[in-house]
Amino acid sequence: MPTPLKLYLAGPEVFLPNARAILDAKAALTRTYGFEPICPGDLAIPPAPTKHQFGLNISEVDEGFMNRADGVIANLTPFRGIAADPGTVFELGYMCGAGKLVACYTNVAASHYDRTADYYAGEIHIAEDGRKRAPDGTMLEDFEMIENLMLHGGVERRGGPVAVHAATSETLWTDLTAFEFCLKALSERV
Amino acid sequence: MPTPLKLYLAGPEVFLPNARAILDAKAALTRTYGFEPICPGDLAIPPAPTKHQFGLNISEVDEGFMNRADGVIANLTPFRGIAADPGTVFELGYMCGAGKLVACYTNVAASHYDRTADYYAGEIHIAEDGRKRAPDGTMLEDFEMIENLMLHGGVERRGGPVAVHAATSETLWTDLTAFEFCLKALSERV
Repeated sequence: MPTPLKLYLAGPEVFLPNARAILDAKAALTRTYGFEPICPGDLAIPPAPTKHQFGLNISEVDEGFMNRADGVIANLTPFRGIAADPGTVFELGYMCGAGKLVACYTNVAASHYDRTADYYAGEIHIAEDGRKRAPDGTMLEDFEMIENLMLHGGVERRGGPVAVHAATSETLWTDLTAFEFCLKALSERV
Repeated sequence: MPTPLKLYLAGPEVFLPNARAILDAKAALTRTYGFEPICPGDLAIPPAPTKHQFGLNISEVDEGFMNRADGVIANLTPFRGIAADPGTVFELGYMCGAGKLVACYTNVAASHYDRTADYYAGEIHIAEDGRKRAPDGTMLEDFEMIENLMLHGGVERRGGPVAVHAATSETLWTDLTAFEFCLKALSERV
């Protein structure tokens, strides 16, 4: 049997109260598609004299996980605002920069443009330069993408799946439909 | 004379109404420290039949810029919420994953923890597991960092500067104090 490819499961689940249960469910599903899951926070973090150093230690362990992985599935579901969790976004960028296999998904159907327009209560106008702008003058991207074009484009241009599934608010973090779509697409590619 | 190192100037300035003026000022300052600036959006983007494809084209051009660059200075000043612009975060991760020189800064003095606590109107409690949690049960990072630990840690662990300067709200996007601190630190390293 060939060695299974290792997939780093990036997402804001680590911050949830039921983090362990959700990550375990994602890891189990990952194995059914023939991949080996690597989850952030799976290993003990070396103790440190300050909380700042402890944070650096977590960064080092998680980067080590990514370096060992062959690819990433990033959960870009908006977290604490209209955008994806910055830690997850960094990790997706890191894996693109390192030339690994990439996939991403969101459990929110509203596009990046729709969410940003909502942030400005829909008060978007076409400016003199022909661009869509908010009352504060900032420009809105409108490329029918789930996130900022560097994220969505970085994955799509590499042939990776960009999966969208409208989960209910109750199942926003437990619905694995879009995550499983990514697993299936990656299993068919490799 | 040696060829100057090329620095990619990542940040949400591209969305601002006065994007060109700010990017020009950053580029000029970059040159005074002996670096060659590379700004997102500096080149013409190939036209495309759909806006989605146009977004992919921008992604391709900007990744090409990063691939040509020797390093990045990322402006992580919060944008449209409590966190850094996702496109900038992706680019910082990309450059870390590609093994380039990295630096970052913010023009907001409030830490990642402080901003997240504010997002929850300060209603943070110590949960049974000893962690700081919000009313929705999610955990807060408290590592005395300017952003999620993967970003701050990724730069600091690579020896890059993480600069903080409290700009006024009027000069949030034009104050280049922290940006210049990064230029100075990088010029002393290379």
